[in-house]
Amino acid sequence: MPVPQHVFDPPFNIVRSSHVVLDVVDLNKSVEFYDNIIGLHVEDRDDTTAYLRGSEEHQHHSVVLRKAEQSAAARLGFKVGSEADLDKAGSWFAEHGVLYSFVDRPFQGRTLHVTDPFGFRLEFYATMDKRPHLLRRYERYKGCHPQRLDHFNVFAAETQDTIDFYARLGFRLTEYAEEDGDGGRIAAAWMHRKGNVHDFAITNGKGPRLHHFAYWVPGPLNIIHLCDVMASRGLALERGPGRHGISNAFFLYVRDPDGHRIELYCSDYQTMDHDHEPLRWSLRDPRRQTLWGAPAPRSWFEQGSPFPGQEVREPVFVADVVIAD
Amino acid sequence: MPVPQHVFDPPFNIVRSSHVVLDVVDLNKSVEFYDNIIGLHVEDRDDTTAYLRGSEEHQHHSVVLRKAEQSAAARLGFKVGSEADLDKAGSWFAEHGVLYSFVDRPFQGRTLHVTDPFGFRLEFYATMDKRPHLLRRYERYKGCHPQRLDHFNVFAAETQDTIDFYARLGFRLTEYAEEDGDGGRIAAAWMHRKGNVHDFAITNGKGPRLHHFAYWVPGPLNIIHLCDVMASRGLALERGPGRHGISNAFFLYVRDPDGHRIELYCSDYQTMDHDHEPLRWSLRDPRRQTLWGAPAPRSWFEQGSPFPGQEVREPVFVADVVIAD
Amino acid sequence: MPVPQHVFDPPFNIVRSSHVVLDVVDLNKSVEFYDNIIGLHVEDRDDTTAYLRGSEEHQHHSVVLRKAEQSAAARLGFKVGSEADLDKAGSWFAEHGVLYSFVDRPFQGRTLHVTDPFGFRLEFYATMDKRPHLLRRYERYKGCHPQRLDHFNVFAAETQDTIDFYARLGFRLTEYAEEDGDGGRIAAAWMHRKGNVHDFAITNGKGPRLHHFAYWVPGPLNIIHLCDVMASRGLALERGPGRHGISNAFFLYVRDPDGHRIELYCSDYQTMDHDHEPLRWSLRDPRRQTLWGAPAPRSWFEQGSPFPGQEVREPVFVADVVIAD
Amino acid sequence: MPVPQHVFDPPFNIVRSSHVVLDVVDLNKSVEFYDNIIGLHVEDRDDTTAYLRGSEEHQHHSVVLRKAEQSAAARLGFKVGSEADLDKAGSWFAEHGVLYSFVDRPFQGRTLHVTDPFGFRLEFYATMDKRPHLLRRYERYKGCHPQRLDHFNVFAAETQDTIDFYARLGFRLTEYAEEDGDGGRIAAAWMHRKGNVHDFAITNGKGPRLHHFAYWVPGPLNIIHLCDVMASRGLALERGPGRHGISNAFFLYVRDPDGHRIELYCSDYQTMDHDHEPLRWSLRDPRRQTLWGAPAPRSWFEQGSPFPGQEVREPVFVADVVIAD
Repeated sequence: MPVPQHVFDPPFNIVRSSHVVLDVVDLNKSVEFYDNIIGLHVEDRDDTTAYLRGSEEHQHHSVVLRKAEQSAAARLGFKVGSEADLDKAGSWFAEHGVLYSFVDRPFQGRTLHVTDPFGFRLEFYATMDKRPHLLRRYERYKGCHPQRLDHFNVFAAETQDTIDFYARLGFRLTEYAEEDGDGGRIAAAWMHRKGNVHDFAITNGKGPRLHHFAYWVPGPLNIIHLCDVMASRGLALERGPGRHGISNAFFLYVRDPDGHRIELYCSDYQTMDHDHEPLRWSLRDPRRQTLWGAPAPRSWFEQGSPFPGQEVREPVFVADVVIAD
Repeated sequence: MPVPQHVFDPPFNIVRSSHVVLDVVDLNKSVEFYDNIIGLHVEDRDDTTAYLRGSEEHQHHSVVLRKAEQSAAARLGFKVGSEADLDKAGSWFAEHGVLYSFVDRPFQGRTLHVTDPFGFRLEFYATMDKRPHLLRRYERYKGCHPQRLDHFNVFAAETQDTIDFYARLGFRLTEYAEEDGDGGRIAAAWMHRKGNVHDFAITNGKGPRLHHFAYWVPGPLNIIHLCDVMASRGLALERGPGRHGISNAFFLYVRDPDGHRIELYCSDYQTMDHDHEPLRWSLRDPRRQTLWGAPAPRSWFEQGSPFPGQEVREPVFVADVVIAD
Repeated sequence: MPVPQHVFDPPFNIVRSSHVVLDVVDLNKSVEFYDNIIGLHVEDRDDTTAYLRGSEEHQHHSVVLRKAEQSAAARLGFKVGSEADLDKAGSWFAEHGVLYSFVDRPFQGRTLHVTDPFGFRLEFYATMDKRPHLLRRYERYKGCHPQRLDHFNVFAAETQDTIDFYARLGFRLTEYAEEDGDGGRIAAAWMHRKGNVHDFAITNGKGPRLHHFAYWVPGPLNIIHLCDVMASRGLALERGPGRHGISNAFFLYVRDPDGHRIELYCSDYQTMDHDHEPLRWSLRDPRRQTLWGAPAPRSWFEQGSPFPGQEVREPVFVADVVIAD
Repeated sequence: MPVPQHVFDPPFNIVRSSHVVLDVVDLNKSVEFYDNIIGLHVEDRDDTTAYLRGSEEHQHHSVVLRKAEQSAAARLGFKVGSEADLDKAGSWFAEHGVLYSFVDRPFQGRTLHVTDPFGFRLEFYATMDKRPHLLRRYERYKGCHPQRLDHFNVFAAETQDTIDFYARLGFRLTEYAEEDGDGGRIAAAWMHRKGNVHDFAITNGKGPRLHHFAYWVPGPLNIIHLCDVMASRGLALERGPGRHGISNAFFLYVRDPDGHRIELYCSDYQTMDHDHEPLRWSLRDPRRQTLWGAPAPRSWFEQGSPFPGQEVREPVFVADVVIAD
């Protein structure tokens, strides 16, 4: 119900969502999926870890796949504005009772690890090894031609508190879904740092879990081609293609070999104006989830990737309508 | 089970499916739908009848909307090669116990009316008033930019007999769906005259009824735009967008204000080779209906437009799997 | 000036243009171009010959590349309706003073070779080895996703006579470009057998030479992707992308390593109606060549592939406007 | 030659390029062009002025058309972060010898007018009347579906000085074209505030003049449709469609009835990272202007819109290669 106000002067400067670290049980199979089906580019790999990126990304990686005993969403990575921001971040987390550590991650500069109060495992960095972008390497295009990682979407058990926490870090609300009436509770929030609809979306549900991470693609035909490619390989789509009311996105959701969910999407809008106002959706408005009317499958509402070592909790409240986008 | 052989020398020459005549209860509402939503072009209209066509069609109309008390599929129209073919057609139908009449239809030359032995009401003509095509009138493009009527798809109660009947008229099988095993029955057939996948498709079910008629559009993005336009107008989609295994079509199904179903589709293939072989699909292969896996709604399997004065019969057999594409 | 009437009952039945045989000086380089850049599929190859096809083609090949000392357009291939048509073709050519021979070509049935009176080297066949189409093998899509060979376009020194000759074989005029005024001469003709704008186009110029052969692709974005892929490989485009007035085609022209010209195109229209009337263009109407106004380069008007052993002659007349599409 | 360093803490906060004010001699004709051809939406108009916007813009207008005796680029509009930024801006300009005034503009809050030292007439504002965006009003889409104003591109007579001036205001260099060798001079610069390739581009040439302003569209097919629509209306395209090496943009340039140039474009990339490095192009690399190789017409290099009352000067230097993108 209380919509967070935008904090124009946050304690440290998060530039944008940057990369996801995934634990996968069969590294070869996962690399095959992200490389040859989705169309990301392998930048480095060894027996235990693979690093991939989209075609416009100068950064070394936006997906890290790590061989593991159990599938999990290991870390959500954010880029900050400078090394000083890392130190400010550490101090701020410490002041707020969150343990932090600085770690060495391959191809990244100094990296700050924290687990937020709700169980989301994060990493922050200011610099990463750079590579020339691949935009003019059209001969290497494949899959759905993913250009850049765009955002994360998580299930949170304590939705309002989680939204408030990230609002204090400067994440700005662009759209939200809410129960109707006095005391109607917020059931989902889309928040950004970089100037489009979101870097981080928070959805009420059993959490902490990663619902999905999303890559931006050039247009709907790239997504349709991915549908055809996956069908040709005998792989199922989970949801879509379709159009969200939320964010106006043309979307497709697919699952990787471990069940991690990836969204391919395009056609949202800009939000960098200082007086940009958040858009409210009633939880009872079905156009929020799908402008076209096709229902999402049960799996899409219920399944997500846990974070290692983080117990999944029931949500504080169950909304009067099932939500998620 | 018995797949009809192609008759290279049929009793008269049907060139292609040409137009559909629909009975509608609210003419204004129907014209608004086909003109401003779908994007056909109104060529003529008065208080009782409207004539529309696609952008590449030189013929005066490919949809005729007639104000009526009851919604119905009034006629399926086919173009024949010459006036002589009309006379040959009349003779042939008479020989086979089918009554025929020649009637005057506005904007059409001499027109032959028959109701086939299964209750499908047909009309044949050799010439129709011509109009310059609208391909280079891009400023008039709207909706999904429908270019041409492509085919009809009907529910037939006597599937095998209906297929055999149209095979004798020269319709050629391109794809079909069949029960597995010895004695497996054909449950759906796609048959053409003009050199692509179909002019006429026959599906097992309560019949005679029109399942849908289809317009060919330039590409998938035109269909996606129609989804968005319909959603913007508060109109529901029935099925799709998606990809059929059958015919490789990228498809969308929507219903007009009377519930008549229209398919918008593209990306099938050519079939004019004399040695083109029909493609068999097992009824148990789900890729037939949808390459991507999204199920069709119940309405799509069950509902269709009756023909005026034709009693709808239960099918001769119920296939061991529900079918239709 | 005299526009040929359509011959509905030609001496033998040509179904459509089918394949081109090209002499190339560096087979590996040519295969690389057609396979990895254009996106055709190699069906067979050895040290001297490679066979490729488009994704919807059931036929074994639509391009044959033959290692040779000199680049040339070796043969234009057409499919006929039956073995009997081959014999009728042989007889007809003999009656009209054209030598013929039956030859064995790999993967083809009995094949008739003739050189027409104007020097165009042709081959006719009724059957070719078949392969399953690749439409539902989207994981193999590459380049511009060419689906099928669509047509040939040649420079003819004796334009009117060449048009008349092919009209007698049943090729039907769909569009033509003509000088204005009484006695205005036809400078280019688009003629079909299969029911779209053309199988064979004849352009006034130094001939006999092949101007280009064309593949149909799913849509404009496939062509735009090919532009980007070729640029990424450092390869130049010759003309386009653009829109022809003629045939409404969205087009791109590129040259293979031997300079053979290939057109990638989409979005023409159907022409199988018996009363379809040819569309006349004044040679002075620039929209004929390009609806958008960008001029074609000099090479496009002047260069073409000679046929082996056929002397290239100056055209009988020079039109009052340079033509070609 | 000296590449400006990014000023992270500029004297006032410019959020992005926002709108252009154009003087036009025939208001009806201009509105017709931007509304029915390009596809912008008229938000308000009277006898002397019309206000239009793109489909995703919440702001009241991004193009203002004013009836005038002479065609001109009246003002380039930028949005700042707050009212306080307007005051800071006034002070800063005054300190640097630039006169300023606050004016009332319809539908805008307090508006600051300045003419920069090079003759570019600017206006800054913090708030503008808001309207609901039109993204989910697909039934209103027309033309090329322009979504938002993206950037301005100007001819500057004093290129290096102009670049340095805007760098001090916080515009950040993303790409630039430079003569080769020691002392090679910068001939064009692309600079941003909002996080993509540019808000403001500066090109060496007779200045001050506006080269073009650009709208972002959803994808290449929208641009191709505009080509077809303009051709259908008998309107010429100036340049494109094509692909710039610079910014990776798929582009089209057209001229409005007064000759003002508008670019329709898509497919650039994000640049908000604090360590994003500018990309250098040699002036001798033709891929900068066009990845595909088609030359730009002379008009595109030479013509631009003057600013009222600002004398157009010859450039300080003439680059050793003609430039502009």
